[in-house]
Amino acid sequence: MLTLQVQYQSTETRARAGRIMTGRGVIETPIFMPVGTLGTVKALSPEELTDCGAQIILGNTYHLYLRPGCEVIDLFGGLHRFMHWDGPILTDSGGFQVFSLAKLSKISEEGYTFQSHVDGSRHTLTPEISIDVQLCLDSDIMMCLDQCIQYPASREEAKEALELTTRWAGRCFNFWEKTRHPQNNLFGIIQGGMFPELRERSASQLTALDFPGFAIGGLSVGEPIDLMRGMADFTLPLLPDDKPKYIMGVGTPEDLVELVALGADMFDCVMPTRNARNGQLFTAGGTLNIANARFRTDTDPIEADCTCYTCRHYSRAYLRHLYKTRELLAYRLNTLHNIHYYLSLMADMRAAISRDEFMEFRRAFYRKRHVSVDNGDL
Amino acid sequence: MLTLQVQYQSTETRARAGRIMTGRGVIETPIFMPVGTLGTVKALSPEELTDCGAQIILGNTYHLYLRPGCEVIDLFGGLHRFMHWDGPILTDSGGFQVFSLAKLSKISEEGYTFQSHVDGSRHTLTPEISIDVQLCLDSDIMMCLDQCIQYPASREEAKEALELTTRWAGRCFNFWEKTRHPQNNLFGIIQGGMFPELRERSASQLTALDFPGFAIGGLSVGEPIDLMRGMADFTLPLLPDDKPKYIMGVGTPEDLVELVALGADMFDCVMPTRNARNGQLFTAGGTLNIANARFRTDTDPIEADCTCYTCRHYSRAYLRHLYKTRELLAYRLNTLHNIHYYLSLMADMRAAISRDEFMEFRRAFYRKRHVSVDNGDL
Repeated sequence: MLTLQVQYQSTETRARAGRIMTGRGVIETPIFMPVGTLGTVKALSPEELTDCGAQIILGNTYHLYLRPGCEVIDLFGGLHRFMHWDGPILTDSGGFQVFSLAKLSKISEEGYTFQSHVDGSRHTLTPEISIDVQLCLDSDIMMCLDQCIQYPASREEAKEALELTTRWAGRCFNFWEKTRHPQNNLFGIIQGGMFPELRERSASQLTALDFPGFAIGGLSVGEPIDLMRGMADFTLPLLPDDKPKYIMGVGTPEDLVELVALGADMFDCVMPTRNARNGQLFTAGGTLNIANARFRTDTDPIEADCTCYTCRHYSRAYLRHLYKTRELLAYRLNTLHNIHYYLSLMADMRAAISRDEFMEFRRAFYRKRHVSVDNGDL
Repeated sequence: MLTLQVQYQSTETRARAGRIMTGRGVIETPIFMPVGTLGTVKALSPEELTDCGAQIILGNTYHLYLRPGCEVIDLFGGLHRFMHWDGPILTDSGGFQVFSLAKLSKISEEGYTFQSHVDGSRHTLTPEISIDVQLCLDSDIMMCLDQCIQYPASREEAKEALELTTRWAGRCFNFWEKTRHPQNNLFGIIQGGMFPELRERSASQLTALDFPGFAIGGLSVGEPIDLMRGMADFTLPLLPDDKPKYIMGVGTPEDLVELVALGADMFDCVMPTRNARNGQLFTAGGTLNIANARFRTDTDPIEADCTCYTCRHYSRAYLRHLYKTRELLAYRLNTLHNIHYYLSLMADMRAAISRDEFMEFRRAFYRKRHVSVDNGDL
């Protein structure tokens, strides 16, 4: 089982920095996990991920279950060798994609039935099947199957979903225990919608089981930003401090800074990769759209002091040219920069926490953004 | 000006191996030049090209003139810094793309007028403008503007085109001489369609000018393979042996072997890059289509003894998965393998020539292909 060693605790905020020891190496927290939906972080090689500072990546169980399928990944002994990534991998349960992508999905006490969004084939996803698939992927951190709900949802709806999520978490936990794969760690997911008392109930029920880590699910599903952060603020202290706290599917650079301040250790989000493919590039001063005509003759890199491969070798003019002509290299160079930005942000936060200067870091973070935005630099 | 040093001359064939000394480094011949149409060899980084053994790449003047335009590339002092490639670059004249891509193109003694295939804007391409654009790209090997004709073409049509090509070559040569940029070498292009006496006339007219190298154009335009090779066989000896001989836009692995045997030094073709993006992968045994269902559970690399990055780390099953799910990494990994295959083939030919064993190499080359094809291995 993985363990968390908290190395530094901010005295001004709940921010903390630590090390998660897994069977595939150490993860320094707080950490962002690039999303590798189909067994590849879109446009990047594993070596490039490592160069960007990636220590753990995320795979999507729903997608990999459909394509290429467990029987293929089994031939490689798991996802790691299949995709040539030696480090830890976290996999989601598949529930969120069934909820958001699959066709004609139905939920019952037993689990989900759904039709593949790829070919319409019929499938069943139960808590046990989800863990079984994640074990086939040889995931280092597996997630319990949960029931996702849309925003807004009624209290009753949120309550029923959290209760089912708790029962499924028990089934996931029991199934995992019986298979005796302690290296394939299992995290519980707190649900409860936007209702504090339901979040409290979910946390209380989930933490009764000895999961090696806990996640907060059901955030960043369309609710206002303050509500999202408020729910995280309320829920994070309900989780045990000696285990990793993971906020799923979040977020913007600002979200990461705020949620680290509130005590979160782990994050994942498609934003840096997806935005890169849409020409949106992150910088300390804010986001720039590389398609913008003003970059046509701009010989500067995306960000002057950025040490990523893209910024060391290429100009905004070149990146704009590649993007406008839809060259494949555009997606790679943009993604590389954005992933580097996200991981550097996490590393910078970790360093600030280690010096107990998180508030100073946070002030500087916002100062740079506002200055540049005000000046219209970007 | 560049110089060719012929190091080895096959005693059984016209094959030869040498070194072309340019202002940006040495090119070992025979050499294949990957095509980087828009300032990027599609899907690859410059470092990956170098890892594959690339020594010189090709840029397309027509495309770069339209996008991003000379005024942008000028800011970088040329194409090299713009695209982060330090080695030699050969650029075509733009004539072939005006002929094959542009809309409403018209030809006169002065040059071409055409409409951009991108936005319909009107442009003029004269011999002088072509050289001027190639100088702006800081091309290490510039090509004379020529008149391309379709296949089949009448003798009269071919004759008129070659005569105009000769007059334009003179204008290119004069313009180049006056600008005094000896590091931006200029090659003449032999035309003449599929008529030996016209090829002879073109070679005689062109070699009267002191170009640092010569190309054979107008091949691989739809004619039968034997006719293409026959024209190359006839024309190559008409070119001076102390200068590089370049066959434009060719070809398959078999073409390269046959044309090296006939004395050609340089090649370019979109085949390895374009086919890679269509899932066609080159191996010693022949071509395989990675989309084929039989590769779904194939844990072997594309080619067992291939040393490319793709074959060292990834299976056919993974490559098929990436290709079927249209992941961006598919195009990169496939292209990397194909470019590595082409450049290794050239390096192997060079090594065989240096040992004066080219015929033995050639027999082994065909033996491997036929064996595998017969066995249905691929």
